[in-house]
Amino acid sequence: MTSTFSPVTLRATAGPGQPEPTSQLDELYRGFEQELLVPLWTEIGDLMPASPSPAAQPHVWRWQNLLHLAQRSGELVPVGRGGERRAIALANPGLGGAPYATPTLWAAIQYLNPSEDAPVHRHTQHAFRFVVDGEGVWTVVNGDPVAMRRGDFLLTPGWNFHGHHNQADTPMTWLDGLDIPFVHQTGSAFFELGPDVVSDHSTPDRSRSERLWAHPGLRPVAQADPTPSSPIAAYRWEHTDAALADQLALESEGHPGVVEPGHAAIRFSNPTTGGDVMPTIRAEMHRLRADTTTATRREVGSSVWQVFDGTGTVRVGDREWEITRGDLIAVPSWQPLTLTTTSGLDLFRFSDTPIFERLNADRVQVEGTPA
Amino acid sequence: MTSTFSPVTLRATAGPGQPEPTSQLDELYRGFEQELLVPLWTEIGDLMPASPSPAAQPHVWRWQNLLHLAQRSGELVPVGRGGERRAIALANPGLGGAPYATPTLWAAIQYLNPSEDAPVHRHTQHAFRFVVDGEGVWTVVNGDPVAMRRGDFLLTPGWNFHGHHNQADTPMTWLDGLDIPFVHQTGSAFFELGPDVVSDHSTPDRSRSERLWAHPGLRPVAQADPTPSSPIAAYRWEHTDAALADQLALESEGHPGVVEPGHAAIRFSNPTTGGDVMPTIRAEMHRLRADTTTATRREVGSSVWQVFDGTGTVRVGDREWEITRGDLIAVPSWQPLTLTTTSGLDLFRFSDTPIFERLNADRVQVEGTPA
Amino acid sequence: MTSTFSPVTLRATAGPGQPEPTSQLDELYRGFEQELLVPLWTEIGDLMPASPSPAAQPHVWRWQNLLHLAQRSGELVPVGRGGERRAIALANPGLGGAPYATPTLWAAIQYLNPSEDAPVHRHTQHAFRFVVDGEGVWTVVNGDPVAMRRGDFLLTPGWNFHGHHNQADTPMTWLDGLDIPFVHQTGSAFFELGPDVVSDHSTPDRSRSERLWAHPGLRPVAQADPTPSSPIAAYRWEHTDAALADQLALESEGHPGVVEPGHAAIRFSNPTTGGDVMPTIRAEMHRLRADTTTATRREVGSSVWQVFDGTGTVRVGDREWEITRGDLIAVPSWQPLTLTTTSGLDLFRFSDTPIFERLNADRVQVEGTPA
Amino acid sequence: MTSTFSPVTLRATAGPGQPEPTSQLDELYRGFEQELLVPLWTEIGDLMPASPSPAAQPHVWRWQNLLHLAQRSGELVPVGRGGERRAIALANPGLGGAPYATPTLWAAIQYLNPSEDAPVHRHTQHAFRFVVDGEGVWTVVNGDPVAMRRGDFLLTPGWNFHGHHNQADTPMTWLDGLDIPFVHQTGSAFFELGPDVVSDHSTPDRSRSERLWAHPGLRPVAQADPTPSSPIAAYRWEHTDAALADQLALESEGHPGVVEPGHAAIRFSNPTTGGDVMPTIRAEMHRLRADTTTATRREVGSSVWQVFDGTGTVRVGDREWEITRGDLIAVPSWQPLTLTTTSGLDLFRFSDTPIFERLNADRVQVEGTPA
Repeated sequence: MTSTFSPVTLRATAGPGQPEPTSQLDELYRGFEQELLVPLWTEIGDLMPASPSPAAQPHVWRWQNLLHLAQRSGELVPVGRGGERRAIALANPGLGGAPYATPTLWAAIQYLNPSEDAPVHRHTQHAFRFVVDGEGVWTVVNGDPVAMRRGDFLLTPGWNFHGHHNQADTPMTWLDGLDIPFVHQTGSAFFELGPDVVSDHSTPDRSRSERLWAHPGLRPVAQADPTPSSPIAAYRWEHTDAALADQLALESEGHPGVVEPGHAAIRFSNPTTGGDVMPTIRAEMHRLRADTTTATRREVGSSVWQVFDGTGTVRVGDREWEITRGDLIAVPSWQPLTLTTTSGLDLFRFSDTPIFERLNADRVQVEGTPA
Repeated sequence: MTSTFSPVTLRATAGPGQPEPTSQLDELYRGFEQELLVPLWTEIGDLMPASPSPAAQPHVWRWQNLLHLAQRSGELVPVGRGGERRAIALANPGLGGAPYATPTLWAAIQYLNPSEDAPVHRHTQHAFRFVVDGEGVWTVVNGDPVAMRRGDFLLTPGWNFHGHHNQADTPMTWLDGLDIPFVHQTGSAFFELGPDVVSDHSTPDRSRSERLWAHPGLRPVAQADPTPSSPIAAYRWEHTDAALADQLALESEGHPGVVEPGHAAIRFSNPTTGGDVMPTIRAEMHRLRADTTTATRREVGSSVWQVFDGTGTVRVGDREWEITRGDLIAVPSWQPLTLTTTSGLDLFRFSDTPIFERLNADRVQVEGTPA
Repeated sequence: MTSTFSPVTLRATAGPGQPEPTSQLDELYRGFEQELLVPLWTEIGDLMPASPSPAAQPHVWRWQNLLHLAQRSGELVPVGRGGERRAIALANPGLGGAPYATPTLWAAIQYLNPSEDAPVHRHTQHAFRFVVDGEGVWTVVNGDPVAMRRGDFLLTPGWNFHGHHNQADTPMTWLDGLDIPFVHQTGSAFFELGPDVVSDHSTPDRSRSERLWAHPGLRPVAQADPTPSSPIAAYRWEHTDAALADQLALESEGHPGVVEPGHAAIRFSNPTTGGDVMPTIRAEMHRLRADTTTATRREVGSSVWQVFDGTGTVRVGDREWEITRGDLIAVPSWQPLTLTTTSGLDLFRFSDTPIFERLNADRVQVEGTPA
Repeated sequence: MTSTFSPVTLRATAGPGQPEPTSQLDELYRGFEQELLVPLWTEIGDLMPASPSPAAQPHVWRWQNLLHLAQRSGELVPVGRGGERRAIALANPGLGGAPYATPTLWAAIQYLNPSEDAPVHRHTQHAFRFVVDGEGVWTVVNGDPVAMRRGDFLLTPGWNFHGHHNQADTPMTWLDGLDIPFVHQTGSAFFELGPDVVSDHSTPDRSRSERLWAHPGLRPVAQADPTPSSPIAAYRWEHTDAALADQLALESEGHPGVVEPGHAAIRFSNPTTGGDVMPTIRAEMHRLRADTTTATRREVGSSVWQVFDGTGTVRVGDREWEITRGDLIAVPSWQPLTLTTTSGLDLFRFSDTPIFERLNADRVQVEGTPA
């Protein structure tokens, strides 16, 4: 803990409920500063707005630009002990230059050259990987090698040792998502180093975690207790794709299942509880049929979306962007979001919703319905 | 949402795992800035420390100084619509001048002159009051007038309309605790105005909530469902005092009940769940016998303590203060805390622990035992 | 386990969906008997009725008659090892002479002479005592002496060692409630002997459990985990009476709280969870104002009521009884129940409702509202 | 409710803690009988044994014998309204001829001829089907046709309308499991008729429930709330078989996953909670390698096992049987169970364990470890 002392600086302002700006008031405010005090009456508009008014801004990062910079980093930046990962994080334009996609979520592109090992460590921050393109890296989580391939969603829940190694002769890149900003701001970060290289360079098609846990509705009798995070290390694209296709087929046949017309979505879940994959992070895959526009929706908490396939348009608040494969979108709390596509669109999404649900602070408002 | 664009500024640094600072690297970093990106490798030491390294600092605010400034505010600052409350918040010296006692908690002294009404509003932030001295104010929560008296702990869970009115001919002051910083940073604040004056100026000794709910182990059959926050609006000092005295008496008779030798403590709880009074805030009362020193303890999450009675010494990290009635202490996450008293000491404490427990991120370490 | 073999005996019957009674059918049925088989088609009407059709019957036992027989038992029957308790159980007239008040609940009058000790034992069955009259006995639960007095509700959750001793120079009698039938039929009974006399003959006014736990909304920090049963050994009449009086006063003032007009009720609860006092037993106290009739109500599961004070009329199904102090009423599952009083009526009630709630099988129907 | 009055009949007995059998005692006992009372002291040995002493007995029913009688029933007994199902239940030899496999569980062989429809109804009893052999029937649950094939485990949670129809030109038979005895004895049975034939005679390979829910770790976003029973109507053999094979392969590779050496087992689970498929019934599939003997194990609650494949020996208490495909085994509460096989053995198992777990009454003892 560094011992930087931040001075308090107050200015008298005019407005309803505000005191008369007199020399006496000025003297009072100097007293506040002296004692490290700040009155509510000058701050309430900012601190207690009528509805969430986040500093974070809607923003879109272009995957092609990220890829280019990641490749260049692969040439210039080593991966190893100290820096730990060749990961480059989205910095929301409203958050003062901090490497935060939203106030709670970290999103980064990670890049690993052929034969490289990202060294082993563990931390209380929860992490996942999502692969838009490529394959050839195995992430080794607690000694279990987990193949990474396009469309796969891969978990590293907090406090599990993990490293990555690239077994292919091409570089590989993917999206990392973590709750680094939340953990940092609440002061709950622990970190520990492991070996410099991963313990197991084998390349199985399925991880051991999947062999135990990724059977639909079946769980090993030997592991009967619920765990805070999912024991499934990899959610494979073939299953995700099939589940989305099934929802749309059911819709075509006149049966329920989709979120709204033309919009299928699955949530990655913890099979020991039915809840979210990790205590602070929700992850979902969405599929829009061609010529679909979603209802405008806003919810408490922030999220990051990545285009997996197709093209379309995203509108967040009063901003609008054309989006294509790999593009990343930050959606701040309570900002209205609308997605449109003519060609069809697959999107990965992660959010901090579990935090709000567990703290009884979640709220959702869908266009045309009450909050 | 204001639309301030924060530029990203990166500097190449030397160190283990850091890239060679070349002109090419410099060009890469300019590319990151251009695209609003920040690499992990320059930030990991700060973002992912070995153990929590909060920006917030241990600090003590002196009640006598706060009282003096609050009284002066009572002369100069109106209470009413707009400013809403004559509340003056502790600003942790490590938090850049923000009105935050800790990264998640707000603590303020509130002051109400005779006959004044603090106007009615509601907000999603959870609030409580704790009274170190005085009486004469009724806080009216959802139309239920709740007397405030020395030693009482009073709840205003999120989204309940509430106002205060002073029925005495003397001013009254008390401690307000809220989760304003947490709600602000996570973007979950909603706020709504109610009437300018409270709806009911009656002055019952007990609130209706207490008549329904404050009977030990008994609950109304008509209200059988659990509620996220406690339905008890007031936890009276006579009960708190008796419970602490009982624990120490049991200890003297050789029976369990105290936290550690000479240290009694009760937690204010939600009788519909047995859990904390509100989803984000834990509140407790502690009593140390004369000549007691607590075990040094640290935990994930931050807390604020207020001396209710007696004198003693508090040590947080490497800082130490003599403390007396009314003094307020900020304890950042994972800072070791030790309390000592020769005369005996009663302390009120509130913390953000429920956030971490609900997110499976709580950790406690008591001197001499493993984390 | 005794090895009695029960033969199966089947008779062909006529009716919709029933097979033709031929000699071939008879031969088939003999085959069933041979193989220990019973077809659904002859039993479905009994096993799967349109709504619960319990074998148990509504019945009222007269306290004066029970008291008389208990006193006579006090003269003729020893209390001690082997018989363990001088307890006399209600045997529902529909249950074949078994000592079951309902299919799941045991209710008995227990009687202890001056200076007697009921020996110490423990069992997985959950038990409570309720005192209609008298005082002078201490029940010692896990070494904690608990005074028993008129109106008190006293817990002995499963697997706690307990004995009773009478310190007065008069006999004492009370109601015992347990889940013996449920535990017997599901095969989950364990039992263990303790000492022949209780370990502690002291006579404190309050038990240690009350000193730790019976403070409204307060819990000891040292015992933070939820427990399946309530840690409060005694719920005192003064609190129960005050809570009921408060509900009726609130009703008079126009505020919510009562179950229905003129009908106050509290539920004894586990302060560590807000739920029922024990996993299989719900316990409540009800108070009807003079000239009150309850809505007719039926619910899945059975209950036993005891008149604590006043007089009135109870109607269960198509039976009706005048009831007075001490009388006990068995209410089988789904039987409509109505209570009426002109003089005012206080009633204690216990039921097996938690079993159904925990198994998602609870249902309630109140006259004039859908099930 | 029939109004049969059961007389109470008491006999004085000799023994420790028993009263002297005198004429006065006899008079007292006649008084008890008169008032429908039974003393604890004569019953305690039966009601409160040292450990569970169930009336139910271990027993094995031979599938070949059941099949033969079921086929004969197919010739003689109609299926349709009134009788509802051509189902023949196991009657435990200790339970007085009642159609109960154990005190809580119903197990029956059901038989449906080509083109027959078992009519639609619903009931609060929870039901499943397990198929040892054959195919060709679709069970239609709430309008969703669910194919039944060898090895499949199929759910009909309580209060879902369901009927069956045989689309093949051969009869089909399967095992039905329900909680009929538990529901009957606790008085919580509701029943309602639906149409005489199923609404949908289509024959899809997968049910709609599977298309929505049977993707590993994925759930539809549109159905986010937990449900008391699993939404998966069919757990297919191909998944069950693969999960068991994976566990044994992991064991061969030196990794955890199996219950004990040579013994793989999966539990069918509710993907919305991670818990059991229905509130009262647990269901599992077990696989023993050739030349495996399980540890002797006993647990509170009863279960029924069916051999799915292979041969072996089962020992329950002091009884032992050779078992082969289809044979059914009743295991009463707390009876020690050991399974042995030289050839390898696949077994389906269902039990009432969730009842005890939800009521905090579960206990397990494995040979050589404490209870």
